[in-house]
Amino acid sequence: MTAPFAFQVFATDGEARRSEIATPHGVIRTPAFMPVGTQATVKGLLPENVRAAGADIVLGNTYHLMLRPGAERIAALGGLHRFMNWPHPILTDSGGFQVMSLATLRKIDADGVTFRSHLDGSSHRLTPERAVEVQTLLGADIAMQLDECVRLPASTEDLSRAVRLSIAWAERSKRAFESAPAGRALFAIVQGGDDPDLRKESARALVDMDFQGYAVGGLAVGEPQAVMLRMIEAVVPRLPAARPRYLMGVGTPDDLLQAVARGIDMFDCVMPTRNGRHGLAFTRFGPVNLKNARHADDPRPLDPESTCAAARDYSRAYLHHLVKANEMLGAILLSTINIAYYQELMAGMRAAIDARRFADFAEMTTARWQAGDLPPA
Amino acid sequence: MTAPFAFQVFATDGEARRSEIATPHGVIRTPAFMPVGTQATVKGLLPENVRAAGADIVLGNTYHLMLRPGAERIAALGGLHRFMNWPHPILTDSGGFQVMSLATLRKIDADGVTFRSHLDGSSHRLTPERAVEVQTLLGADIAMQLDECVRLPASTEDLSRAVRLSIAWAERSKRAFESAPAGRALFAIVQGGDDPDLRKESARALVDMDFQGYAVGGLAVGEPQAVMLRMIEAVVPRLPAARPRYLMGVGTPDDLLQAVARGIDMFDCVMPTRNGRHGLAFTRFGPVNLKNARHADDPRPLDPESTCAAARDYSRAYLHHLVKANEMLGAILLSTINIAYYQELMAGMRAAIDARRFADFAEMTTARWQAGDLPPA
Repeated sequence: MTAPFAFQVFATDGEARRSEIATPHGVIRTPAFMPVGTQATVKGLLPENVRAAGADIVLGNTYHLMLRPGAERIAALGGLHRFMNWPHPILTDSGGFQVMSLATLRKIDADGVTFRSHLDGSSHRLTPERAVEVQTLLGADIAMQLDECVRLPASTEDLSRAVRLSIAWAERSKRAFESAPAGRALFAIVQGGDDPDLRKESARALVDMDFQGYAVGGLAVGEPQAVMLRMIEAVVPRLPAARPRYLMGVGTPDDLLQAVARGIDMFDCVMPTRNGRHGLAFTRFGPVNLKNARHADDPRPLDPESTCAAARDYSRAYLHHLVKANEMLGAILLSTINIAYYQELMAGMRAAIDARRFADFAEMTTARWQAGDLPPA
Repeated sequence: MTAPFAFQVFATDGEARRSEIATPHGVIRTPAFMPVGTQATVKGLLPENVRAAGADIVLGNTYHLMLRPGAERIAALGGLHRFMNWPHPILTDSGGFQVMSLATLRKIDADGVTFRSHLDGSSHRLTPERAVEVQTLLGADIAMQLDECVRLPASTEDLSRAVRLSIAWAERSKRAFESAPAGRALFAIVQGGDDPDLRKESARALVDMDFQGYAVGGLAVGEPQAVMLRMIEAVVPRLPAARPRYLMGVGTPDDLLQAVARGIDMFDCVMPTRNGRHGLAFTRFGPVNLKNARHADDPRPLDPESTCAAARDYSRAYLHHLVKANEMLGAILLSTINIAYYQELMAGMRAAIDARRFADFAEMTTARWQAGDLPPA
């Protein structure tokens, strides 16, 4: 029997919550960070290494997967879990965000969006119903409604129109999702850009429809962190306590800390893998740029106290060499180290919430980042 | 106490031999295939995965490592084993081959070779003594003499001159190696191009100097396999039975089978990793090109009977997708699969020699390759 979708809060500390989401493919411990598996792979990592780094769930991108290899093909092959050899929970986005950022010749209308593939120029159409269908074919444990994400800065008119369109699409998504297999969940997405009133309006309308979870979308698109945090503060009090809250596409370690303090449960971001491929490590000491020549002769590991073997077993000199030599192993090790650091940070937050010491934890963590990297050996 | 270098033959079958080489960092089971770790990494693989694939030893490239990050730097960091987190045996080449194929503005004289780095144009000099010094700094368990490798086709005059130069350099290398730490070994390299008489002359002179092992160099440079095998047949009978024999830069799975049948013990080649990065898998069924559209909907693994999890746990459809999408994981999985297949082939040869059934094994293996890949599902 398939486990039903369920959400349970075990501890709170201020707005921060430590909870669990049960899905057909297992439990997600929150606050949770979801590594991004854009094209059915978390770039550079074997799935068992994603798991070993501490991840309970990964994200798949509907836009990429519907274009290549195709949702129907993945379904025929047994679904995304089997396809990518990841038997744990998967959340898929709706494709809307990538349509706006990657596709060409977009044409949005009340019914959906028509666009051309960035891969081969072929024409495709995504409607709320098709986005649900694609995600159902992929077999996502958690699917997202199709929404319209507006680039900031934007006029109130544009933001308002997008909010209303996203609300209408939420309703259609919910109806389409009624025939999805039992146990799977559909989340709505709160839009409204940097306008707190629109954010509240969006949240209110979506909550009235009673979704299994709520995301805050359209942030981390270049606005200052303070704006993002204000939007979270406007939205979270209007979301039901009994539903998970997901801040999409965020962010830096500090973003995660700040957002959890404001009641967010879930995150996804390409930052740990993308920055890893470019020689940047996230550590307890803050970001460390392995391209920097100061590491060239440094025999010390990146962080001897890391839970991640890659951060302990290789010298900074070696990581520097791999990055300079453009070796795949540099990207592999730094992506692994970064995913593990993000997971370690989430685990630290979960333990701190349980102990009702979240503010202390946040302060200590931030202080360690600000003290910076180890001094030269 | 450091283990001394030792070589022991446990079984023979025709010319084929199953033996072990003891080094300060452990035992190499032969016939052995050495994955190539050009820049202190076997491209795309974690060292523990190289080991898990069955490799006892990897090769490091003196030319690359002396230019970046530098031999003195690696020595200061504790040597190549520690640098690349590979605590098992390492063989380094002398740098001569890459100087000829990669460096610019080469100028060879009786004393050595001056060249410019392909990385930054900086000027460097390699002599027999410096090649030994660099390899000693790296900490290689097995070092190679500096030789001159001539491109084929070449005139008898050119080949003969290179043979005589390589013999003179062998003598100087041996003298320079006398101060190397105990337990390490230096191998000589038989040259002579495609001229059997020169090959014999080269072998005779080098054997008179009594090296701890002998390589056959200057092959796998584009000549037909039959020429390569004739050269092996000319050289091997002139090499002492009590010393390991190493065929440099070879080759395809069939090359390995043919050369072991003619008495070769060790191999290195970039083929499994380079081809893996380009979508080609080596399997029991022969080479399989994962770029081919026939795999796009194939739910079957590459080889359900492989000893390598990567060949069993991922569908051909997924591998095809990763290769088409140019995802790092495609290169990682296929490089792993290929290294594991090469190791599986060597293990099969070793077992067959022990059982004195090498000819049967070679025939069955070849027949399976020739029958080709699995028919469509």
